[in-house]
Amino acid sequence: MSELLDRRSTSLRFESGRLSVLDQRLLPQQETWHACDNSADLIAHIHSLAVRGAPLIGIAAALMLAQRALAGAERTALLADWQALRASRPTAVNLMNYLDQLKPLIDAGASAQTLTDAVLAIFDQDQALCLRIAEAGLPLIQPGCRILTHCNTGSLATAGIGTALGLITQAQAHGLAPKVWVDETRPLLQGARLTTWELARAEVAHTLICDNMAASLMASEKVDLVLVGADRIAANGDTANKIGTYGLAVLAQHHRIPFYVAAPMTTFDPQCADGSKIPVEQRAEDEVRGVVTAAQHHVFSAADTPAFNPAFDITPGRLISGWITDHGLLNGAEEFPGAT
Amino acid sequence: MSELLDRRSTSLRFESGRLSVLDQRLLPQQETWHACDNSADLIAHIHSLAVRGAPLIGIAAALMLAQRALAGAERTALLADWQALRASRPTAVNLMNYLDQLKPLIDAGASAQTLTDAVLAIFDQDQALCLRIAEAGLPLIQPGCRILTHCNTGSLATAGIGTALGLITQAQAHGLAPKVWVDETRPLLQGARLTTWELARAEVAHTLICDNMAASLMASEKVDLVLVGADRIAANGDTANKIGTYGLAVLAQHHRIPFYVAAPMTTFDPQCADGSKIPVEQRAEDEVRGVVTAAQHHVFSAADTPAFNPAFDITPGRLISGWITDHGLLNGAEEFPGAT
Repeated sequence: MSELLDRRSTSLRFESGRLSVLDQRLLPQQETWHACDNSADLIAHIHSLAVRGAPLIGIAAALMLAQRALAGAERTALLADWQALRASRPTAVNLMNYLDQLKPLIDAGASAQTLTDAVLAIFDQDQALCLRIAEAGLPLIQPGCRILTHCNTGSLATAGIGTALGLITQAQAHGLAPKVWVDETRPLLQGARLTTWELARAEVAHTLICDNMAASLMASEKVDLVLVGADRIAANGDTANKIGTYGLAVLAQHHRIPFYVAAPMTTFDPQCADGSKIPVEQRAEDEVRGVVTAAQHHVFSAADTPAFNPAFDITPGRLISGWITDHGLLNGAEEFPGAT
Repeated sequence: MSELLDRRSTSLRFESGRLSVLDQRLLPQQETWHACDNSADLIAHIHSLAVRGAPLIGIAAALMLAQRALAGAERTALLADWQALRASRPTAVNLMNYLDQLKPLIDAGASAQTLTDAVLAIFDQDQALCLRIAEAGLPLIQPGCRILTHCNTGSLATAGIGTALGLITQAQAHGLAPKVWVDETRPLLQGARLTTWELARAEVAHTLICDNMAASLMASEKVDLVLVGADRIAANGDTANKIGTYGLAVLAQHHRIPFYVAAPMTTFDPQCADGSKIPVEQRAEDEVRGVVTAAQHHVFSAADTPAFNPAFDITPGRLISGWITDHGLLNGAEEFPGAT
């Protein structure tokens, strides 16, 4: 198999037609890679959040379809895999968008090579999208800008440099020396574990906080900009993102702080009229009762304490200052491509 | 020594002139009591948060002075203890208020019995205050009221039934069947560990959430009332309380949800003009980098990740619907006793 097929990113490897994924649950303590033998393997890693990040899930699923095709899977088998992968998480729309691009090829019985070329184009496109997002966002970043971010939206969450965090590391590369407040992002601590890890590697100044500290930082005028990613953006601008995002948007409005969403156009869902139509995944109560990752399982409340664990929330478009995309900076839903 | 001197609460025991404290860091997994030999012992427990809760710290410090006097400590020694205890935590004013009540007795060289009587009066008064707070607050609780609370303000935090949480358990006793959303309260998880433990014991329906989930619950109209305690209330109504409280107040205002503070008058500091004068304790960065209690020490971010850890924030009085006190329900700072 040609090395031209190989692709690598911070958290994905596609080598000799085989997908391996970095177990993001184990970061920053361990860097462990899992080879994926089949779609069920990958789906298990997506469910457990070993593989997470809205664009990354979609790219990993696409790579698995290429792996299956290259290994000789026929149309019927590929369609079954396609269906299972597409249903692996409900909220992020990039997964559906990327897989829907591949469906006509599978339906038409395209060759493994043709399908693989299409998958690798998605991978390469995602890297390019990230750079274009950063380019669109750089004018918003003043030198020394104090940016508050939530969850992880960096090179772990995409094939490229990331969305919101990619913009931040590009700002650093451009000498703008941003200072980043990192929300820990309970319950799964993507901020505390992943975003701090990426920022340290990129040598960006950062300080970890608990999610509930953002408001008082804003009140004491220590935040210039809130920058987050997205899992799905409805036609009216309502935006689904990691739980906690909506509260930050309300707080930013109250303190007159700009609140921007950075996302590729593959995160937009023009078929979805508004946020009420976005399904919000509910996850296991244990994640809230303690710190539950592959590396750690420590329950600090009673094991039978009732808990509630929505993975996402919906921020109304009216609370969002703008969307930083690979199609430029969009200041309102009326500027979305295809808006009527 | 007479048994008339003995006192017990959920988290304090004063028996035969000796103070023992329940280690709140170990709850709900373990109920461990520590006998305190001297003021240094108690101060260490206050610093480590084995003993926490604004009223409780003050009562425990007062009991330690009684213990020391009963053991024969003279005026000079008592004054040194008084000073060290009074400085053990900076934000909660109940500690200063209670100890300042005892200062004239120590200055005057009062007998151990006289000082102890004054201390036990503080203990008994705190229990009575809690009941009066609940009485003042009950009219605010509709049957089936869905209450969101933060931190722990119950029988662990006072000598009596508590403040905000005491009102909730009294509402349950009155058949009002409240339903409680419990903020886990990062970083030290007083909500997840202590409030859930108290609510389960009182058989009050409750659901644990991460702090960053409150906003989306409010948006989906699942919260009727926000009820919190306080560590210090300035003359203009600005209120210091556990970090995260201020954000809840902004969110409650945005969603037009009543936001009440429950506290005894010993939490009011008329000498303090406004919130900017309240010192906010900064705690160790490790608490934010992981889950750090006596029972657990699990760091989930890199050990050298910079972190920020203010223990409290200040909620402006204008965001507070009212203060539920032992002097009744106060609807504005102009109703505070002594207001001009």
